[in-house]
Amino acid sequence: MRVLVLGGDGFCGWPTSLYLSDRGHDVTILDNLSRRNIDNELEVQSLTPIRPIGERLRTWREVSGREMRFVNLNLATEFDRLVRVIEELQPEAIVHFAEQRAAPYSMRSVNSKRYTVDNNVRATHNLLVAMVEAGGTPALAHLGTMGVYGYGWTGSAPIPEGYLTVKIETPDGEVAREILHPANPGSVYHMTKTLDQLMFAFYAKNDGLRITDLHQGIVWGTQTDQTVPDERLINRFDYDGDYGTVLNRFLMQAAIGHPLTVHGSGGQTRAFIHIRDTVRCIEIAITNPPQMGSQPMVLNQVTESHRLRDLAKMVSEMTGAEIANLPNPRREADENDLVVRNDQFLALGLNPTTLSQGLMDEVTQVAMRYKDRVDPSKIIARSVWRKGMETSEDLITEIPGTQK
Amino acid sequence: MRVLVLGGDGFCGWPTSLYLSDRGHDVTILDNLSRRNIDNELEVQSLTPIRPIGERLRTWREVSGREMRFVNLNLATEFDRLVRVIEELQPEAIVHFAEQRAAPYSMRSVNSKRYTVDNNVRATHNLLVAMVEAGGTPALAHLGTMGVYGYGWTGSAPIPEGYLTVKIETPDGEVAREILHPANPGSVYHMTKTLDQLMFAFYAKNDGLRITDLHQGIVWGTQTDQTVPDERLINRFDYDGDYGTVLNRFLMQAAIGHPLTVHGSGGQTRAFIHIRDTVRCIEIAITNPPQMGSQPMVLNQVTESHRLRDLAKMVSEMTGAEIANLPNPRREADENDLVVRNDQFLALGLNPTTLSQGLMDEVTQVAMRYKDRVDPSKIIARSVWRKGMETSEDLITEIPGTQK
Repeated sequence: MRVLVLGGDGFCGWPTSLYLSDRGHDVTILDNLSRRNIDNELEVQSLTPIRPIGERLRTWREVSGREMRFVNLNLATEFDRLVRVIEELQPEAIVHFAEQRAAPYSMRSVNSKRYTVDNNVRATHNLLVAMVEAGGTPALAHLGTMGVYGYGWTGSAPIPEGYLTVKIETPDGEVAREILHPANPGSVYHMTKTLDQLMFAFYAKNDGLRITDLHQGIVWGTQTDQTVPDERLINRFDYDGDYGTVLNRFLMQAAIGHPLTVHGSGGQTRAFIHIRDTVRCIEIAITNPPQMGSQPMVLNQVTESHRLRDLAKMVSEMTGAEIANLPNPRREADENDLVVRNDQFLALGLNPTTLSQGLMDEVTQVAMRYKDRVDPSKIIARSVWRKGMETSEDLITEIPGTQK
Repeated sequence: MRVLVLGGDGFCGWPTSLYLSDRGHDVTILDNLSRRNIDNELEVQSLTPIRPIGERLRTWREVSGREMRFVNLNLATEFDRLVRVIEELQPEAIVHFAEQRAAPYSMRSVNSKRYTVDNNVRATHNLLVAMVEAGGTPALAHLGTMGVYGYGWTGSAPIPEGYLTVKIETPDGEVAREILHPANPGSVYHMTKTLDQLMFAFYAKNDGLRITDLHQGIVWGTQTDQTVPDERLINRFDYDGDYGTVLNRFLMQAAIGHPLTVHGSGGQTRAFIHIRDTVRCIEIAITNPPQMGSQPMVLNQVTESHRLRDLAKMVSEMTGAEIANLPNPRREADENDLVVRNDQFLALGLNPTTLSQGLMDEVTQVAMRYKDRVDPSKIIARSVWRKGMETSEDLITEIPGTQK
């Protein structure tokens, strides 16, 4: 398939682009490198030494013999160029990773809140309008988030895939209706994904766009089969308090001798997926799109759920790392249960990569290899959900065993 | 109360500002005059000769002895100035009319779709962030639309005020939950109001903002007690296919000898409110705000529902005007029933101004007085919901009894 990957230089986008290219798809990456620019703003860098996009693409050609194209384009502002790209490329599938994706960053400041909404909403809406304008019937697969559902809203009921059947009292008796699961976002970032859902519903209904919304869990891991062969293909690894994802942070903290940073009691239960499954899910999604005229297809892109304190305990037992219970910078329930349906991906052939010591070791080894690159002052999460909320001091000021 | 009226130069904003000022509130209007600029773009003007905002304010001072301030500011782009305005003014209430408000315009072109989303979403989000940043606890009243609910979704059940109680099956038995009524917008414009709702829910929950969302029906009428005393205070009257509202269009068409333009069978039932009630509802809303920490309060700002063909028939019988059934440029159900709850406004003291021959005559007389200003080529609605949909030719090329 001809596939256009929006945000193809990012943490999920890059390994997905490589995977799709490796599987024989004709991949064009579109990205404005905003994630690298935010690293500059936050004065932090990927734990792994990611290479410029040009070097990444040249290396991939050397290693695989396959060509990927790259377009540097800002989706939120460069609408006319976007239409031309779609018209010229005539993609059969578009994968949309091109949104600011960190909840803490989205709550960090006035500017980051505004940037998250302005960028994400306009990027998604411009894309939808451009798809209508360019014609054709490409399948769109968008990265949503489990966070659109909120946590524990339906009591003991498992979280369904996007749609929920409810009963409503009417003067003519009770009627059943299928509704989009009520939105209960926990941050400005998550909120933008709930806005995306409503835009998808409208453009599917009005214009017949074929859209799949992938409500992904928290991604962990860093390497895939395609990023391993050459260090210049290495994937991004975020360890900082804004962009680092929780399990990767625990594993990296264990590797460098930092206590594991649990916020509050650690009673929060979250859904997870390994990056190797993310890339597989994307291919499954774009090869099984909804029919034209259907409502958006929603798939929960998760493989397992864990309580955060259980994950911390597991990593601690594996590595001997201490656990630190820190003030929670987020406004969220301290404890929740979580059961998530993921039947559709299982039915479409996903063979889940679940938590295993081997895969956790792999992450720890990556962290060990690059620990000289860690800035210990970036580890504590300090973006608070409301002004004045308490945060922790730095727990260490230098990395044991490095010379900085 | 110190009240900041965003969009206070528009069709609802101007008479609301006058009414609030007349009632003794201290009113500041904030507007970027975008509605006047869109008139320039569409090459049409208000049927009534509205005056520049400066002249409007000077006249109001002469007529009433009351002072209103004006700030020319683009909410979507001038965030820092917005924060300063709120900090300096310390409003007790903010009324938010400042969104692109025409469904047909929002579907007219690639640019108007993008403008509607970019402007409305950013305006609302900037406002919410600015309110958090500026501190204080002003009550925010926002103009939503009945169109967020869609039409006929709950079968015979009346449309509730914002929230709906539903029952959900869980492994532990059926549970009842109150949810935001599922969104089913019929245009990009209506879609933006469904996005607003989710932003309001988040900022009420996370930051304790006090928000009332007013789901207004279709406004008709043009004059209020405050716009009548001096022609220089006259309110806007839109008759064109994009901005004109249906009943005002029928009345104006009757006045100038144009057939009444019914789209499709006219079986669509819609909710209505007279402009005199709009202005009263706003004062009721800002003087009865929700508590801090509450979810947004939602009020249906409507007084009655009518099927469009019944309205056309009523106007035809009153005036002798012909009825023309034209192709519908919208994608919408050709027939729907509609019952809307508006208990909250009634309980808070609203005494509804319903359809009456006297009030319809008033509109017709306004239209008669200014019929020389009508461009007959602007009457037919031609903004189609999808490319290629059929629209009508002009039904008349000159206005009987005028010399143009």
